[in-house]
Amino acid sequence: MKVKASAKAISDVIARIKHDGYVAHLSEGADHTIIGVVGESATPLLEENYATMDGVENVMQLSVPYELASRHFHPGNSLVPLNGSQMGGNKVLVIAGPCSVESREQIIETACAVKEAGATALRGGAFKPRTSPYSFQGHGEKGLQWLAEAREVTGLPVVTEVMDPALVPLVCQYADVLQIGARNMQNFTLLNAAGESQHTILLKRGMSNTVEDLLMSAEYILAQGNRRVMLCERGIRTFEKATRNTFDLNAIPVLKSLTHLPVIADPSHAVGLWEYVEAISRGAVAAGADGLIIEVHPRPDEALSDGRQSLKPERFKSLMEQVRRVAEAVGRTA
Amino acid sequence: MKVKASAKAISDVIARIKHDGYVAHLSEGADHTIIGVVGESATPLLEENYATMDGVENVMQLSVPYELASRHFHPGNSLVPLNGSQMGGNKVLVIAGPCSVESREQIIETACAVKEAGATALRGGAFKPRTSPYSFQGHGEKGLQWLAEAREVTGLPVVTEVMDPALVPLVCQYADVLQIGARNMQNFTLLNAAGESQHTILLKRGMSNTVEDLLMSAEYILAQGNRRVMLCERGIRTFEKATRNTFDLNAIPVLKSLTHLPVIADPSHAVGLWEYVEAISRGAVAAGADGLIIEVHPRPDEALSDGRQSLKPERFKSLMEQVRRVAEAVGRTA
Amino acid sequence: MKVKASAKAISDVIARIKHDGYVAHLSEGADHTIIGVVGESATPLLEENYATMDGVENVMQLSVPYELASRHFHPGNSLVPLNGSQMGGNKVLVIAGPCSVESREQIIETACAVKEAGATALRGGAFKPRTSPYSFQGHGEKGLQWLAEAREVTGLPVVTEVMDPALVPLVCQYADVLQIGARNMQNFTLLNAAGESQHTILLKRGMSNTVEDLLMSAEYILAQGNRRVMLCERGIRTFEKATRNTFDLNAIPVLKSLTHLPVIADPSHAVGLWEYVEAISRGAVAAGADGLIIEVHPRPDEALSDGRQSLKPERFKSLMEQVRRVAEAVGRTA
Amino acid sequence: MKVKASAKAISDVIARIKHDGYVAHLSEGADHTIIGVVGESATPLLEENYATMDGVENVMQLSVPYELASRHFHPGNSLVPLNGSQMGGNKVLVIAGPCSVESREQIIETACAVKEAGATALRGGAFKPRTSPYSFQGHGEKGLQWLAEAREVTGLPVVTEVMDPALVPLVCQYADVLQIGARNMQNFTLLNAAGESQHTILLKRGMSNTVEDLLMSAEYILAQGNRRVMLCERGIRTFEKATRNTFDLNAIPVLKSLTHLPVIADPSHAVGLWEYVEAISRGAVAAGADGLIIEVHPRPDEALSDGRQSLKPERFKSLMEQVRRVAEAVGRTA
Repeated sequence: MKVKASAKAISDVIARIKHDGYVAHLSEGADHTIIGVVGESATPLLEENYATMDGVENVMQLSVPYELASRHFHPGNSLVPLNGSQMGGNKVLVIAGPCSVESREQIIETACAVKEAGATALRGGAFKPRTSPYSFQGHGEKGLQWLAEAREVTGLPVVTEVMDPALVPLVCQYADVLQIGARNMQNFTLLNAAGESQHTILLKRGMSNTVEDLLMSAEYILAQGNRRVMLCERGIRTFEKATRNTFDLNAIPVLKSLTHLPVIADPSHAVGLWEYVEAISRGAVAAGADGLIIEVHPRPDEALSDGRQSLKPERFKSLMEQVRRVAEAVGRTA
Repeated sequence: MKVKASAKAISDVIARIKHDGYVAHLSEGADHTIIGVVGESATPLLEENYATMDGVENVMQLSVPYELASRHFHPGNSLVPLNGSQMGGNKVLVIAGPCSVESREQIIETACAVKEAGATALRGGAFKPRTSPYSFQGHGEKGLQWLAEAREVTGLPVVTEVMDPALVPLVCQYADVLQIGARNMQNFTLLNAAGESQHTILLKRGMSNTVEDLLMSAEYILAQGNRRVMLCERGIRTFEKATRNTFDLNAIPVLKSLTHLPVIADPSHAVGLWEYVEAISRGAVAAGADGLIIEVHPRPDEALSDGRQSLKPERFKSLMEQVRRVAEAVGRTA
Repeated sequence: MKVKASAKAISDVIARIKHDGYVAHLSEGADHTIIGVVGESATPLLEENYATMDGVENVMQLSVPYELASRHFHPGNSLVPLNGSQMGGNKVLVIAGPCSVESREQIIETACAVKEAGATALRGGAFKPRTSPYSFQGHGEKGLQWLAEAREVTGLPVVTEVMDPALVPLVCQYADVLQIGARNMQNFTLLNAAGESQHTILLKRGMSNTVEDLLMSAEYILAQGNRRVMLCERGIRTFEKATRNTFDLNAIPVLKSLTHLPVIADPSHAVGLWEYVEAISRGAVAAGADGLIIEVHPRPDEALSDGRQSLKPERFKSLMEQVRRVAEAVGRTA
Repeated sequence: MKVKASAKAISDVIARIKHDGYVAHLSEGADHTIIGVVGESATPLLEENYATMDGVENVMQLSVPYELASRHFHPGNSLVPLNGSQMGGNKVLVIAGPCSVESREQIIETACAVKEAGATALRGGAFKPRTSPYSFQGHGEKGLQWLAEAREVTGLPVVTEVMDPALVPLVCQYADVLQIGARNMQNFTLLNAAGESQHTILLKRGMSNTVEDLLMSAEYILAQGNRRVMLCERGIRTFEKATRNTFDLNAIPVLKSLTHLPVIADPSHAVGLWEYVEAISRGAVAAGADGLIIEVHPRPDEALSDGRQSLKPERFKSLMEQVRRVAEAVGRTA
């Protein structure tokens, strides 16, 4: 729309879009308003019908298949509120906690420790995706309750995974951020349910999905009108066996250039060995990541899952210090 | 159990397993009965407690993490009934049909054509997993109804994908075989729902999942007491760009050696270009595949999805002829 | 050139090409003669200058970057002579022998065994590419002499690897076919030396090279005027760990469609475990491979290299029988 | 050896090693001397024969297959002299220059520009490994002469690739550092020639080689008594298509932990698009890289190779500034 397009002009365009059988998405910047049109309809969408409407500056077709996620549609950074800060803003935010919620004590102890070290949010799994049906699958709703208790004690918002579309409403009752795990990145039923919830979503890249696949999955959530989406690079599957996955550092600047959504990194899963987590964390922040998600466990040797990649609280404290220095070196805070 | 173990001895062992907090699975061969014990319990499972029970020949711990899927547990081939034949038996069975159910006419026309060419079952998608939220997502329940009509006309059982755990009961009403797609291979909620349904399951390998991952996902279904599971190799993601995916031929004999479950191949997705589908089909059968699943469309140019990899009916007829000759060369029929 | 282009017309075109600073390559079919033009020159190659010359039917620019290797340049199959047969012809030819030449006795014993089973040529390494500098590196020239002795005894031509461009003349003295190994597929110095030798070349695909990369490397050899090149699919590197490499079955029909050069398969390296070599061999032949190269060792347990993937002679005999049946099923012999 | 082992005790042990048919490598630290034994011999190497010798503290067998490259053999960092500084020391050193040496003027202009921006050495290819035989293959010896001229003008040492073992002596005449390219990482003939030259070597990781493969290839060079080896991570081949390769950030801290050799990063090839080179450079240094190698071209649009990934001199200047700040944040200089 033109810089001074009237509210009426804008609503007329939106009405026309609806009338033609499409969905309109509004992106309001400081000067400009951009109206995205998505969907399929029997009525062809004719540029000439819109180009001549009042207040319309320009009608263009996007060359990328993810309109709402693209920087064309929303040139600035999307800011996702988290604990009084904003993911995607100048401050690098760190989410930390154990892989699984194992007990009330464990999660509260860890929450206190990561808060003290400067974490912005608490992570912890109540529903765990496990390769084997015989592995510990998480404590379910009880785990969610313990997470909520940890939030009460520390004030840290809670990030936790949801695997079952039918449980999205339940998890929303307890969690501040719903995590969609790597194995579910193309579980479109779950993506739709997450979009509909209007809850903040942390969407992890699948281990064999391209950057474009990730943006298309984000588009599923955005297309439901839910704009609070964070993307997470967590390592991809390659032939290399020295580490659990291969952290795709390239994906950080590439995503930052293609999309307005915040991009965070998960060094714990990406490398899979705690001794390398600090190095990967520093690298991710130096390359432009907006945040980190880190596995911390008070006693990694006793962890029910992922102990090999979990940091002890004191090591996490040191990581936070290193991240702060690197963030400052690239003109940010942490 | 010993060769002549009495029914009482067997039921005593099963009772003891339940008492200890585990689940017992029975595999009855011509001579031998094997009782699998799976699960986790506070009671440690002591070999000595069982070794001395009546009728017990041997107690052993498996080194593979997928007990029920392994050949140790069930040395012979599992036979999965399909249209009067058996997947996993001597005859190579072919499932064929369009990627998506597009209309009543299209699915009936295709069903008649593939039946005439010798297909054993009809495939067709009513719920389609699509990378983009703006692509055609399938006709849903209407598509299922059309599939059921096509079955009435041709007698071919229906294989169709289910993506949403909540829709498993609905899809079971119409379909003979539930397909779990590659993107959902580690959607554990869906695997559990599929297992509980006790319906025949066609489980596709994820594009970046190992053979062991596939067997672990099968184990989720088997652990629900559902033994009618077919595995499907459909190509993995690699660096090669000349084809859609890389068909992992090695996986066919490796799977046949590790598991008793039938193993089928999906050349259409594995290579992604119709002109190579016959060659890959012949190769898969020569290497030991128990069956094939092939995309056939009367007018591939007009297909709403995957037209590039769909065979026309006459070409499918030629494929069936080639498959028959190769099957005979390896001592089977088709 | 036109169907009845005179010898003079052809030589005039070739002279003009040379005059313009390019290299001309002649491909003579039953009816048609095609003249390929390759190279770089300061003189632009103007279509109009050639289109009007006597006997010229058509001037066209190729869209693939490997002109001499492509089917556009040479539509029929190139036939590479081997022991009185022709690789690329109707008969599927099998090259067999140990990974390394370990002793005079070992190579002669193996040569006799594989000949008896029906092999067309003998393989065996005298110079071995080894990941570790401390592993057995082959017997060098002594190994070549033993190979030549084995040829004298059995009449089987010898296929052996050359790694050092400076040793190409030496290896040519003893070997009938020079093998360029997977690790050297993009060793352009070696490719040029192999091309210049005018010896028959067996070029293996690198473990992370695309089909197009392979054809470009073949082009290096062809550009030296050496047309006797066989290509070999030997497995690529992927995330799968159950097998040594992933055999890319797709590559067989894709290569057969893009190039006129013979395409063979190396199941031994592709799967890396002897128990699966027969299945992969059958699959490769069913999909259209022109030949196989198989590791055979009289006592695999004592092999200095690759014992895990080597067949015993009796198993190789059974493989030959299976290959024959599959070859016949696809209209060939073996 | 014991802390105060005499020179005689050390030379006696070395003599015994030679007598037994092995090669001895000496690593002298501040306190300790370690003697590495490598090779194969008919005489078994008995621990007890050595454990009782004068001055011997401990005899142990390494579990890694790369002895000389491992931190067990040489616990401290190896420092490789470069232009008065040391690669592997506290200062992060940057090597920069064009992909190919295109003309005398181009290389001198670029050398002056990168020197001014703070580069420690000049890179430029005279012999270029090209996928196509018809692409520009480099200016050969003339290119080496121009590089030497650029060194005279700027004082920057020259890093250039050698592909042909026979040309190692020639390239050594002009170059300060021999580069072994990714495609030649397992060209063992070339590795041996590079080792024998006793010249400083920059060894790049192959695009589908593991970290362990890279260390084994370094071992080839070290086993020739050549200790001046730098390793380079330059991106691996994966399924991702958004970038040329996938930069394996994990490899940086993993290599730093396994080996004493300096580890540098090549962001230009790893990401393949100039707009992301700064981000990857910052990430690599933050994760612990000892140096960088960066493609710089005065006019990337006119480059004969790799223009898409080359920085203009002013952008390189900005990169150096960013690298300095990140280096300081991790306790180093640049």
